[in-house]
Amino acid sequence: MIDYPISRYPVPEINELPDDIQQRILEVQEKSGFVPNVFLAFARRPDEFRAFFAYHDALMEKDSGLSQGEREMIIVATSGHNQCTYCVVAHGAILRIREKNPLLADQVATNYRKADITPRQRAMLDFSLKVAAQSCEINDNDFIELRKYGFSDEDTWDIAGIASLFALSNRMANFTGMRPNDEFYLLGRVPREKA
Amino acid sequence: MIDYPISRYPVPEINELPDDIQQRILEVQEKSGFVPNVFLAFARRPDEFRAFFAYHDALMEKDSGLSQGEREMIIVATSGHNQCTYCVVAHGAILRIREKNPLLADQVATNYRKADITPRQRAMLDFSLKVAAQSCEINDNDFIELRKYGFSDEDTWDIAGIASLFALSNRMANFTGMRPNDEFYLLGRVPREKA
Amino acid sequence: MIDYPISRYPVPEINELPDDIQQRILEVQEKSGFVPNVFLAFARRPDEFRAFFAYHDALMEKDSGLSQGEREMIIVATSGHNQCTYCVVAHGAILRIREKNPLLADQVATNYRKADITPRQRAMLDFSLKVAAQSCEINDNDFIELRKYGFSDEDTWDIAGIASLFALSNRMANFTGMRPNDEFYLLGRVPREKA
Amino acid sequence: MIDYPISRYPVPEINELPDDIQQRILEVQEKSGFVPNVFLAFARRPDEFRAFFAYHDALMEKDSGLSQGEREMIIVATSGHNQCTYCVVAHGAILRIREKNPLLADQVATNYRKADITPRQRAMLDFSLKVAAQSCEINDNDFIELRKYGFSDEDTWDIAGIASLFALSNRMANFTGMRPNDEFYLLGRVPREKA
Amino acid sequence: MIDYPISRYPVPEINELPDDIQQRILEVQEKSGFVPNVFLAFARRPDEFRAFFAYHDALMEKDSGLSQGEREMIIVATSGHNQCTYCVVAHGAILRIREKNPLLADQVATNYRKADITPRQRAMLDFSLKVAAQSCEINDNDFIELRKYGFSDEDTWDIAGIASLFALSNRMANFTGMRPNDEFYLLGRVPREKA
Amino acid sequence: MIDYPISRYPVPEINELPDDIQQRILEVQEKSGFVPNVFLAFARRPDEFRAFFAYHDALMEKDSGLSQGEREMIIVATSGHNQCTYCVVAHGAILRIREKNPLLADQVATNYRKADITPRQRAMLDFSLKVAAQSCEINDNDFIELRKYGFSDEDTWDIAGIASLFALSNRMANFTGMRPNDEFYLLGRVPREKA
Repeated sequence: MIDYPISRYPVPEINELPDDIQQRILEVQEKSGFVPNVFLAFARRPDEFRAFFAYHDALMEKDSGLSQGEREMIIVATSGHNQCTYCVVAHGAILRIREKNPLLADQVATNYRKADITPRQRAMLDFSLKVAAQSCEINDNDFIELRKYGFSDEDTWDIAGIASLFALSNRMANFTGMRPNDEFYLLGRVPREKA
Repeated sequence: MIDYPISRYPVPEINELPDDIQQRILEVQEKSGFVPNVFLAFARRPDEFRAFFAYHDALMEKDSGLSQGEREMIIVATSGHNQCTYCVVAHGAILRIREKNPLLADQVATNYRKADITPRQRAMLDFSLKVAAQSCEINDNDFIELRKYGFSDEDTWDIAGIASLFALSNRMANFTGMRPNDEFYLLGRVPREKA
Repeated sequence: MIDYPISRYPVPEINELPDDIQQRILEVQEKSGFVPNVFLAFARRPDEFRAFFAYHDALMEKDSGLSQGEREMIIVATSGHNQCTYCVVAHGAILRIREKNPLLADQVATNYRKADITPRQRAMLDFSLKVAAQSCEINDNDFIELRKYGFSDEDTWDIAGIASLFALSNRMANFTGMRPNDEFYLLGRVPREKA
Repeated sequence: MIDYPISRYPVPEINELPDDIQQRILEVQEKSGFVPNVFLAFARRPDEFRAFFAYHDALMEKDSGLSQGEREMIIVATSGHNQCTYCVVAHGAILRIREKNPLLADQVATNYRKADITPRQRAMLDFSLKVAAQSCEINDNDFIELRKYGFSDEDTWDIAGIASLFALSNRMANFTGMRPNDEFYLLGRVPREKA
Repeated sequence: MIDYPISRYPVPEINELPDDIQQRILEVQEKSGFVPNVFLAFARRPDEFRAFFAYHDALMEKDSGLSQGEREMIIVATSGHNQCTYCVVAHGAILRIREKNPLLADQVATNYRKADITPRQRAMLDFSLKVAAQSCEINDNDFIELRKYGFSDEDTWDIAGIASLFALSNRMANFTGMRPNDEFYLLGRVPREKA
Repeated sequence: MIDYPISRYPVPEINELPDDIQQRILEVQEKSGFVPNVFLAFARRPDEFRAFFAYHDALMEKDSGLSQGEREMIIVATSGHNQCTYCVVAHGAILRIREKNPLLADQVATNYRKADITPRQRAMLDFSLKVAAQSCEINDNDFIELRKYGFSDEDTWDIAGIASLFALSNRMANFTGMRPNDEFYLLGRVPREKA
């Protein structure tokens, strides 16, 4: 079996990393059962690692009018647009788990317009794609449209923030050739995952 | 649980279909354990059904310098480009089974340039995408390039034929809103599926 | 005078072809006075030839809410978009003949939005181009819009089917470098062609 | 028969136009047997009319390393790209006449890459399309490439000048909805037009 | 300091130019304090020079429902779209001067949708960009929309004419590698430019 | 004079902000003489503010094979592509100051291919634009190409990191409608840098 590298760049040993980064990695490993490769690929630049995950947490772990599953939808849909294999596969897994839906991630990644989502979620993803692909055309009507579906202006910031952060993340993953861990592909697909 | 329709158009009862179409559907059901929705969605127009599957068989079941897995790669990569949920999900399953590789389909659908494929397969998919997206620019150099990787001109016709047939198929699936069977999503992902 | 090849691939002798294919070719020759090159270029692969023309006949010779001229408009407009010389020239000729209009084909091929067509035909071609170029965005509103112009949902399937079939055909013609017969260029341009 | 307008704007009576413009129109009428609609559509703004035709003559009637037929090829290929019905039809006619070739215009308008032209003409049209569609990417290598085919730097200016002038012309024709005269469609198609 | 050429082509000595062209150049030099490089770059082809500036004057110096500043906005916005450094810098300077606004040119060149302009000017620029980028889709509704903002159909012709002329100009400037004079960069930025 | 808002969202009072954010803002105010609006627009979400500026500092203030001026070029070129008025104007000012060149920012923002930069800087910006616009196509050859110009793989990460961070920043600035401070427009343009 070929042993594919997880990044174009060398990956540091965990025990050589600064303490806070080791700590973060061990936590995610404990929670997930493995270390997602993004942690290893980014760890070689500790300051960028810290900033990236601080930004991530600020948007993904805050209270929001968006459920955690909805936030993952934004990531999966925009990452599909950007053809980012790492984010589609890794966040696809998280989306399946968050929504307890084994079908949704493949649908949202391929063509969110035909996915099993609500009209509100469809409006959220339409706007996410506008942020990802044509942010220069965003205007006041986009806010008005989202309000119709119950999104507050803070929710809209959350949508735009997540789509913007993964504009960064998709580009870095494509640039480093970041490889999704094999574990992600199957996560959340077998209904009895807790059994 | 919501019962999503498999097509924007009504779907006929199998036992009301012409004999040859019933026969074809029963065969695939026996082999797969379920009837892929494309058979049901197309059956309402028997002549188009027959022509489509005759074209499919002429390219997908012939002897070829392309393995059956490689032929599925062409379908998955071009269907990803066309954002066709049905073909990405259904042929993604077949690709996983043909190649006995649970990771390949998601990679090829998202960004074939970074998939775990050989340089020969990469050249095949580069050309497939050119057929799908810029066929007006195909020129003699494309043939020369493919010959370098051992593709005969008949193989090149096979590549172009499959990419062209799924240009048709993707559009019809997007048009009818064809829904992939739930079964496809998991097929070929669990290594010991027969055990 | 240069003798341009009609395809990048060798073209079989008619008398070496399977009987049904010989038959089909002789029929079209009798009707048209010459053998359109698509028959010769596709004949080397009899199964694909049969499937293609079966699909063609299923859509182009059926009863439909679309006139035969309207069906040709769909082909010419989408083939113009795909820059397919063979289909623009050959079906442009058929369009002129069907509509008894020597100007229409060049207009539809270049910019159907400014062609001498009815609003109903304009709506039909808008949808045809959506099938050809952005099928992933087709949605229920497209059907509603077409119904306003009197298109039944079966008519809409006919439009989508023709645009999809020529998505295939344009790609194969561009791929093989298929050359339109010289005869097509002038057909239907001189008003008294029957005189 | 519907009487289609030749422009979205009113067209002046010839005898009310300034003398020099009347003169120009009568000359072209004498030579062609009819008044091409561009003269009528532009005549309502005499200063723009004079500037446009002065620019036209400066490029199209000068001595050049490009034959007059080649200059028409540039117009037809870039006008096809811009979907300008007037220029494709009118200059397509002139191209047929200049090159004494009834097939060339439809080929060049649809997909110049597959037209019956020389490699030198192909290089000329590749550059013309770059001027039309991506002029911001023009660089010194474009000049070097054209020199390989015997184009002097003055010839290159002629190519760029014509492609640029018809960038203007295509936009004005599309804007005014300028209608090609019916006469153009058949001109140069019947080989013995002089007989 | 590097002495950058003002064009890929040789630039003639002013005193060797035809009298009328010398005259024009001296006038602009007197008025501006320097000779804008477009005059020098185009002067080597006197007939094209005369035609270009005749077209320019016909649109830019006529009476119009568009102010002179608004006409410059059209140039700057479309030149930004076409990535034409010469026209963005040179006409950006004129726009600042005409509108007595040191901020406007950079805004309009970068993203006119967010510039400090009126809704009427926004509608004018939306249409200008349609002329520049998608003239094949112009239709009657564009005229109706502009009338809502008080643009007469003559004003609309002015907008289209200017956007079309600079479609030509941007391409020629990109082709020749025309360099903006250093003076333009600062013009109109310092509020007391007359002091 | 119209008082344009600096963001679509309310902007907090500086003295109500967390201490570390107040501190950061006062520092930049001291250094620049004014508070760039990005600090005010982002301050309402302190965690995102801290993450953004931590990421910014990690890339922009580190030791690097890229000069600080070169890093600003990356920002200006990609922000021009994304039509982000805030970043083009604000970082354009910083670029002028860093490079002591009053012309460079407008050139790089409009068409970096024709800017007064070195071949090495041109290669850097070609890659930056690939990160910004087609990151899915990045491959090993891009690294090889950059090494030819003396960029180490760490330098390449710096380029990609900056282009990725401003992919985020441009989207957030376009989304919030962030307005550049008036001061930026003139900074670095007047050659009193010696005073």
